[in-house]
Amino acid sequence: MDNLKKYESIIKNVIRKYAVYYKESNLEEYEKQLVFDSENHHYFLMDVGWNDMKRIHFCLLHIDIKNDKIWIQKDFTENGVATDL
Amino acid sequence: MDNLKKYESIIKNVIRKYAVYYKESNLEEYEKQLVFDSENHHYFLMDVGWNDMKRIHFCLLHIDIKNDKIWIQKDFTENGVATDL
Repeated sequence: MDNLKKYESIIKNVIRKYAVYYKESNLEEYEKQLVFDSENHHYFLMDVGWNDMKRIHFCLLHIDIKNDKIWIQKDFTENGVATDL
Repeated sequence: MDNLKKYESIIKNVIRKYAVYYKESNLEEYEKQLVFDSENHHYFLMDVGWNDMKRIHFCLLHIDIKNDKIWIQKDFTENGVATDL
């Protein structure tokens, strides 16, 4: 497996893991969106929904693959996602 | 062309149009990321970069296709993107 495919698979698994973790642990019932753009190599975990009248639209995780490297563009996980990569 | 393909094509064109517009009109040089997840039908236009020491990570546009309908999840374009859809 080449690096790109390997990195993509790792990133997708990390995002899926956090999606499950947040779904199981959070009381909020926002939609967890897994966004996988395998062509441009952008990968997101999003919170989308409403808290009463307040709009929730928040990026929990954003990871890219650029020049054969993994870029953590945004990371709002508690302990940081880097240890999972 | 079925609705899904038609909607996807329209959304991608709108996002591409705004990416070009912002690139040409803005003085800021943040990376404009076009995020197209054609499997789960999430489509984003993102600003990613740095303004001096300040991190820029901002979603300008987020459009989904859900249940054969177009959902504008976030829209920070000046006049609203709905007229382009």
